[in-house]
Amino acid sequence: MKIAILGYGTVGHGVDEIVAALDGVEVAHILDLPDRCTEPRMTSDYASILADPEVELVLECMGGLEPAHTFIMQALCAGKGVVTSNKAVVAAYFDEFAEAAKANGVALFIEATTGGGIPWIASIEKARRIDEVTSFMGIMNGTTNFIVDNMAKTGADFAETLARAQELGYAEADPSADIDGIDVKNKTIISASVCFDVACTSDFPVTGIRNLTKADMDLFAAHDRVVKLLGHGVARDGSYAVAVEPMALPASSLEANVPSNFNLVTLEGATIGELKFYGQGAGSLPTGNAMVQDVLDYRDGRRPSYDRSRDLAYDPALLAGDYVFRTIEAPDGASPYGEGAWLVEGITAEAARNLLTNACEADPSAFMARIV
Amino acid sequence: MKIAILGYGTVGHGVDEIVAALDGVEVAHILDLPDRCTEPRMTSDYASILADPEVELVLECMGGLEPAHTFIMQALCAGKGVVTSNKAVVAAYFDEFAEAAKANGVALFIEATTGGGIPWIASIEKARRIDEVTSFMGIMNGTTNFIVDNMAKTGADFAETLARAQELGYAEADPSADIDGIDVKNKTIISASVCFDVACTSDFPVTGIRNLTKADMDLFAAHDRVVKLLGHGVARDGSYAVAVEPMALPASSLEANVPSNFNLVTLEGATIGELKFYGQGAGSLPTGNAMVQDVLDYRDGRRPSYDRSRDLAYDPALLAGDYVFRTIEAPDGASPYGEGAWLVEGITAEAARNLLTNACEADPSAFMARIV
Repeated sequence: MKIAILGYGTVGHGVDEIVAALDGVEVAHILDLPDRCTEPRMTSDYASILADPEVELVLECMGGLEPAHTFIMQALCAGKGVVTSNKAVVAAYFDEFAEAAKANGVALFIEATTGGGIPWIASIEKARRIDEVTSFMGIMNGTTNFIVDNMAKTGADFAETLARAQELGYAEADPSADIDGIDVKNKTIISASVCFDVACTSDFPVTGIRNLTKADMDLFAAHDRVVKLLGHGVARDGSYAVAVEPMALPASSLEANVPSNFNLVTLEGATIGELKFYGQGAGSLPTGNAMVQDVLDYRDGRRPSYDRSRDLAYDPALLAGDYVFRTIEAPDGASPYGEGAWLVEGITAEAARNLLTNACEADPSAFMARIV
Repeated sequence: MKIAILGYGTVGHGVDEIVAALDGVEVAHILDLPDRCTEPRMTSDYASILADPEVELVLECMGGLEPAHTFIMQALCAGKGVVTSNKAVVAAYFDEFAEAAKANGVALFIEATTGGGIPWIASIEKARRIDEVTSFMGIMNGTTNFIVDNMAKTGADFAETLARAQELGYAEADPSADIDGIDVKNKTIISASVCFDVACTSDFPVTGIRNLTKADMDLFAAHDRVVKLLGHGVARDGSYAVAVEPMALPASSLEANVPSNFNLVTLEGATIGELKFYGQGAGSLPTGNAMVQDVLDYRDGRRPSYDRSRDLAYDPALLAGDYVFRTIEAPDGASPYGEGAWLVEGITAEAARNLLTNACEADPSAFMARIV
């Protein structure tokens, strides 16, 4: 079977390396910029790839919205299946891709968008053959987990740790997508779509860890808690809700003990209970592995279909909980949680996000975490 | 599709409950003892089930070696696929079952034998499409994890905690299969067979937690470690080794933080790195879920085949490590680890097991754990 790789960066190289060791799959074309085409398989002419009738699958690992969106649509409309690792473009154009795949009778695979090498998307789909998935949550971003884990282990503060993550290649020069929760937001949209069959809104509370300090971590440690950045969602009684937010988890939880840049994702179903999956959340070979697993699933006849048309209302009340705020002024109804920190009980993720936004007007360094 | 359930205990009930909510699968027959046949689907006549040409799959959830072994062979030879949750019978007759399945062109599914509701067997098989699995390890027995977790959390000693586990239905009246590591031994044989394609020996070091005391746990806690019972295995350079033993794990490891009767199993592969899977290790609905997942995999065309003919030598040297012994006399070459406890570095699991056996002659209550 012949496949084409779009984008020959970290992930594209991983796919190429893994496929080279497999029988029966061949990387026939690699799309890259003209000045990077250094071997016979490489081309900068996407039309020539689409015109090759032997190419069954196009593996998009370019990242970003354009030209990835256009290239994916062109592949689907040309009757080729698509395997993508691009969470941003899937979160933005999920329905368009799913409908084009259906209309053209071709496959759309998205395992590598969420959870890196963890078989997360396929596991949700498998669980749903029996159970309704009622909730999910997860550490879905290796960069922020590395930062938080490193701060806890070395005692360094946020800026210093971010700089170290950048040196090691774990964080981008512009770290905003990671530390402000944008990456987790995209993965949360994708997870909710697959868990709940819903056209997940992009308008939900998202808070990152940019303002997390060593003092915050020490405060939570005194309460036997560890802060991590998580995406989560719940569906119940015809409604659903999702959020991305720092959570202060019990030190004895599995989530609190996820090291370095690993991911841990959880689903819950009626008969299976809680299932958790742990592995490398990013990287050349783990993400490449997830894409090649999709290729092998295609070869073995798996044809996932994504239908986001379930009629669930977005109801913020489903995600009510207790929040700690480190702010200059105590929020209304708050009780003391520690030096300069306040506990507000029984509010929604949305109300908490609004409280934080207001607090940031007086103090842009304010921080908040959900107590779980 | 029509299926038959053999044995209407905890697991059989779980399967029946789950299938009742599914479209397209029907429990046509349930085999049980004559005095338990209380509804039209139930029979004590196995021949009548085998003679029903509409039954495609037989789900064996009786447990034990006989008549499970005979019934499974009869089903395979009658051209029916088998789904089993019975680790003891699979560990004992793996080759016989796999060969009969192959010879008769029918399917053999064993997901529910190991890891309860965790999709462990299918995940190993999936990972192996790309990677060689180089090692596995896991908390594979919910009863012993419940005991250890409960001892740690309540401060109770072993006997008291075992009694509580028996009250709650987490431990059998005769707890030996759990606390002496026999159950984990069977799951380790099955895991090694699927991970390494090897006819895993049944002659390897097995140590349980019968002699674990609260004082032992306190000693390891002072070294920031938590004791759990694990099965593990490694394959390298044409050899393999396996063992079941108490391990003293870093308190910050995921394994150390597995609560109650949950399981956590890990595989390692070249491109995927470490993958961990966590979930209910036993119980009516989780184990039933695993069996029904096998049924749905069968419906969707999956036909796992088990070939244990890989030529790997058993080499105990692959599992060398450091061990702590709580014994009356210090073993040769030991250094002090704490009150009455000794550290022996760089010995094999086999040598450690022999040291413990010798120590138990002077003190039958001696205990040992591998430091990882």
